[in-house]
Amino acid sequence: MYGAGDVRVETVPDAGLVETTDALVTVTRACICGSDLWPYRKMKPTALGVRMGHEFIGVVAAVGADVRTVKKGDVVVAPFAWSDGTCEFCREGLQTSCLHGGWWGGTELDGGQGEAVRVPQADGTLVTLPVGRDDALMPSLLTLSDVMGTGHHAAVAAKVARGKTAAVVGDGAVGLCGVIAARRLGAERIIMLGRHPDRIALAREFGATDIVGERGEAAIERVRELTGGVGAHSVLECVGYEEALLTALSIARPGGAVGRVGVPQDATIPAGQSTFFDNVTIAGGPAPVRAYMDELLPAVLEGRIQPGRVFDRVTTIDGVPDGYRAMHDRQAIKVMIRF
Amino acid sequence: MYGAGDVRVETVPDAGLVETTDALVTVTRACICGSDLWPYRKMKPTALGVRMGHEFIGVVAAVGADVRTVKKGDVVVAPFAWSDGTCEFCREGLQTSCLHGGWWGGTELDGGQGEAVRVPQADGTLVTLPVGRDDALMPSLLTLSDVMGTGHHAAVAAKVARGKTAAVVGDGAVGLCGVIAARRLGAERIIMLGRHPDRIALAREFGATDIVGERGEAAIERVRELTGGVGAHSVLECVGYEEALLTALSIARPGGAVGRVGVPQDATIPAGQSTFFDNVTIAGGPAPVRAYMDELLPAVLEGRIQPGRVFDRVTTIDGVPDGYRAMHDRQAIKVMIRF
Repeated sequence: MYGAGDVRVETVPDAGLVETTDALVTVTRACICGSDLWPYRKMKPTALGVRMGHEFIGVVAAVGADVRTVKKGDVVVAPFAWSDGTCEFCREGLQTSCLHGGWWGGTELDGGQGEAVRVPQADGTLVTLPVGRDDALMPSLLTLSDVMGTGHHAAVAAKVARGKTAAVVGDGAVGLCGVIAARRLGAERIIMLGRHPDRIALAREFGATDIVGERGEAAIERVRELTGGVGAHSVLECVGYEEALLTALSIARPGGAVGRVGVPQDATIPAGQSTFFDNVTIAGGPAPVRAYMDELLPAVLEGRIQPGRVFDRVTTIDGVPDGYRAMHDRQAIKVMIRF
Repeated sequence: MYGAGDVRVETVPDAGLVETTDALVTVTRACICGSDLWPYRKMKPTALGVRMGHEFIGVVAAVGADVRTVKKGDVVVAPFAWSDGTCEFCREGLQTSCLHGGWWGGTELDGGQGEAVRVPQADGTLVTLPVGRDDALMPSLLTLSDVMGTGHHAAVAAKVARGKTAAVVGDGAVGLCGVIAARRLGAERIIMLGRHPDRIALAREFGATDIVGERGEAAIERVRELTGGVGAHSVLECVGYEEALLTALSIARPGGAVGRVGVPQDATIPAGQSTFFDNVTIAGGPAPVRAYMDELLPAVLEGRIQPGRVFDRVTTIDGVPDGYRAMHDRQAIKVMIRF
């Protein structure tokens, strides 16, 4: 990506091993993320451009001398952040704060939206999948790299639990996965705030029990009506705009929690006083999807959840620029790239 | 209080029973709260004035026909918010959000800084104390009406647990009670941010292991140095100013939590983006001290905690205006009123 709206498919130097803890992965599936749309909308033009993509599955082509847990030929999924797996934060299950980890792409590392990726800290980062490279479960397995784990993180941060009422702000892929997560964690009622018919239909299939098509104040009023005037126990904020966060904070009931996973586009958190008086907890951040794979991978393999249904378009590497456009224009929920 | 700096002791109509669920309490001990200093600094002049005081202990003088749990002659402590004890929020232990509750004082109700108080919803609100009206434990028992329960709430919201590092922002009575609470909940290390020698000395006696006298960026750096560069697991924000909250959010380690109990003086919460990327949880609000009495009252009665030591000045009703001045000027930590 060279700037807002400027995504190019280019030939770059081959990825290769550098550190002894690296793995080289030939990408077989990747995708475009809602968070990739932030630079797609805002990035200032640059001469060098940045590599894009942080969600991918591939086959290990080579490993460094110190790699122990993956080997050549393994089919692996990568979380959207790489991590050593051994630092104090990794041991606590917060791999997105790994002391020796980092993020894909940019100007230093390969991105997942490419044919091959050098994976630093391969032992801490990669998870081997017990399926073939073209298994029918690939779309759902690919969501474990980000959106399914992120929706789950929103639900966990929002303290979704059996019998509770959850509300989901944002009908993108993460919000839809948030519905899956809320249902899986036992929410009795799941209110989806959204208005796009195809997304709403999918949300209902995933377990949403109520749909609120209003926005802003009207949406807040509608959720209050649906919840006996008090709001939802758990609110999943899956957008990142201040208005969405304000809506999320405003529909949480006293003593409730907002789990925010939309990358915040503003420096401050609104409603600091009303959330205080209502004892509303604000939690969340980048999801430690690496930690969640232990729990979510079996759920996908056993067919209990089908988050791969969020992919409504498949393209090749050459179709990536148009995939960005389609997601930006909301013609597609989420675009998968097959290599 | 008629306006900023304008506190008067006046004779008002006698308090009395109105509803059948009321109790009439003759106040024996009350105090001035740090939160009373917000209007003392900011309140616009008014003609009618507002009744003040939300922390008191007294003797029940009469009860309405429907009151069941307290009777004439009982020595009782009142939480800083009154509540019915039966609504869904009370049953969840969040009495500060009681659907039929409210706050002392103002223009409608009596305040605790007076000789007698009509207590609405007496069954839900009052807790009987198994001691005489002039028991030596009175100062500590009085803190259960607010500051000890509030410090405990900060610690609970900040997820203090055995072996963790806690930091306390604010060396007022609530911050000092936060130190007691953090120690009681098992924090291994307790860092107090403060600079007043008498308060620091008390903090150390309560269990603070480290004192940070710096402010702003320098304080943040110092806490980072003390915590291996990463920050504290649990941060208790006991002030309410934006700068204090920003400091609190900045010294929380990734995955940590800030429990805020200082009444926020600003509409927004700062550091919305850095707290997101660090997965820092922001929790807290008005403490449901009524719920915490079950746990904290035995701790006081058995002498395991001595929060009453935060009172460093005792006065009579006539000394209340000067008590406000002394707390505002930081000549006193907290002023107790004996009737």
